Formats: sequence, C-alpha cells, structure tokens
Amino acid sequence: MSGASGPRYELEPIGWVRSPLVDRSSAPRQGNEGSPEASLVFDPRFSEGVRDLRAGDEVIVLTWLDRARRDVQIVRPRGNPANALQGVFNTRSPDRPNPIGLHRVTILAVDGLTFRVRDLEALDGTPIVDVKPVLDRRLER
Amino acid sequence: MSGASGPRYELEPIGWVRSPLVDRSSAPRQGNEGSPEASLVFDPRFSEGVRDLRAGDEVIVLTWLDRARRDVQIVRPRGNPANALQGVFNTRSPDRPNPIGLHRVTILAVDGLTFRVRDLEALDGTPIVDVKPVLDRRLER
Repeated sequence: MSGASGPRYELEPIGWVRSPLVDRSSAPRQGNEGSPEASLVFDPRFSEGVRDLRAGDEVIVLTWLDRARRDVQIVRPRGNPANALQGVFNTRSPDRPNPIGLHRVTILAVDGLTFRVRDLEALDGTPIVDVKPVLDRRLER
Repeated sequence: MSGASGPRYELEPIGWVRSPLVDRSSAPRQGNEGSPEASLVFDPRFSEGVRDLRAGDEVIVLTWLDRARRDVQIVRPRGNPANALQGVFNTRSPDRPNPIGLHRVTILAVDGLTFRVRDLEALDGTPIVDVKPVLDRRLER
C-alpha cells in the first residue's frame, strides 16, 4: 500500500478474547475446525451493550486481528503452497488491508462480563470490536 | 462512553458505496428488504486485492457506517418504539460503539473497479473496509 492520505476511522476495543490459542501456526483456519472453548471478556464500559446476550445465543463476533499483516493483497488460500495465488478479498486470510475477523460463535455460559463461547479460532488477547446477533440461523455464519 | 484511553486501531477505506440511497430514514433495515441495486467502487490502490471477484459471487462486505452514532449502548430494535429496549450488541442497529456494517451481497456485474451488487442497504458514500467470500452459501449471510 502507498502512504496516500485519505479518511481514517478509529476502532476502539470493547473487549478481548481469552483463549488457549496463542500463535497463528497452531490455530484452526476457521472456528468450526477444532477450536477450543474460549471466552469473550468485555470492558466494563460496555456492560450496558452486552446486557441482553444469553447462553444459547448464536452471535457474530468481529475482532481486530492485531497480529496480521496489512500490506498483503495477494495470498495463497489457507496458507497452502498448493493453492493458486488469489486476490485477498476472495479469501478469508487474516492478512489483509483492514484485518477484521468475522466469527460465528455460540455462547455457552455467561459470568458477569465473561462469555464462554464455542467455535472461536481467534488468538488469546485479540481485541473484540463488535458483536451482532445472527439474523437467520439457517443462513448466517 | 468515557474518554478512557486504550489501544485504538485505524481503518482505511478500500472503496466506497455508490447507491440511490442517501438518507437513513428511507433506507431498508436489511439488504434483502427492498434495497435498490448499488455499486462497490474500489480505490485503485486495492486493484490487486479485488482482482478475483466475479459476477455471480456472493460476498460479505464490511463497511464503516459513517453516519452512525457511537455513544449508544441501548436501542429499540429497528428503531420501532413498540420494541423493548435492548443492549446494542443484541441488535443490528447502525448506532453502536464501532459502527461496522455487515452486508451479504451478490455481485451482478464487474466493470474495472466498479462492482454492481444486489441487496446492499448502505447509503451512498459509505466507506468500504473489507470484502470476504461467503464460505457456505447455505449457512452464511
């Protein structure tokens, strides 16, 4: 990417991922590919916003993939050398100009501002930037 | 929200929405609720990243909802006064601490860096920050 100037928008973490996953090389590529249980731990400043999330809910978690490279536009999907090079917006590579992670997870248990979840492949310490409800269980992931 | 300091992350637009929708009051709440056709117009600096997107592809577009309020944690879903107040992370309200829009759209036609799409409810001029492929047509939206 060039250093061309233009508008910029500032994301503020609303919480953080707590997970046994600590490095990219051992993390699953997608949440439903063997992710261990993990937790979403919200900043107390956002306690009102999360007050109606319940165990059993399926939600979409958006994260900021803070260990990703942002200067990448062409990748081999899943990091597999056998795959042909692809424009990054055709892939789910974490390395991309704005490394926002999109994770569909199920809430297993709630303890204050800590939400235990299934199917989250994000690394320990990853900032959470948004949570949205799944609109249609059949269609959304 | 307090002004508490902490890490911040900077988003850079990769393109912009071009749409007949110009104000929130007349825009559909979700993309499949009567959105007019619209276009994704990418910045030439990201031409490599979008090179493999094709007509017929279903993709997830992430936008920065630049006309949203960020100081909102409790809302009435769909702006309907008949709905009970809800924590914002249980809703798809555009007003939220980090107003990232999540849109599942179908690419209808490609002309250089302009991608005509169906089912996009974002307003004209909305910044685009990421595009991801739908992983499972059945499950994702």
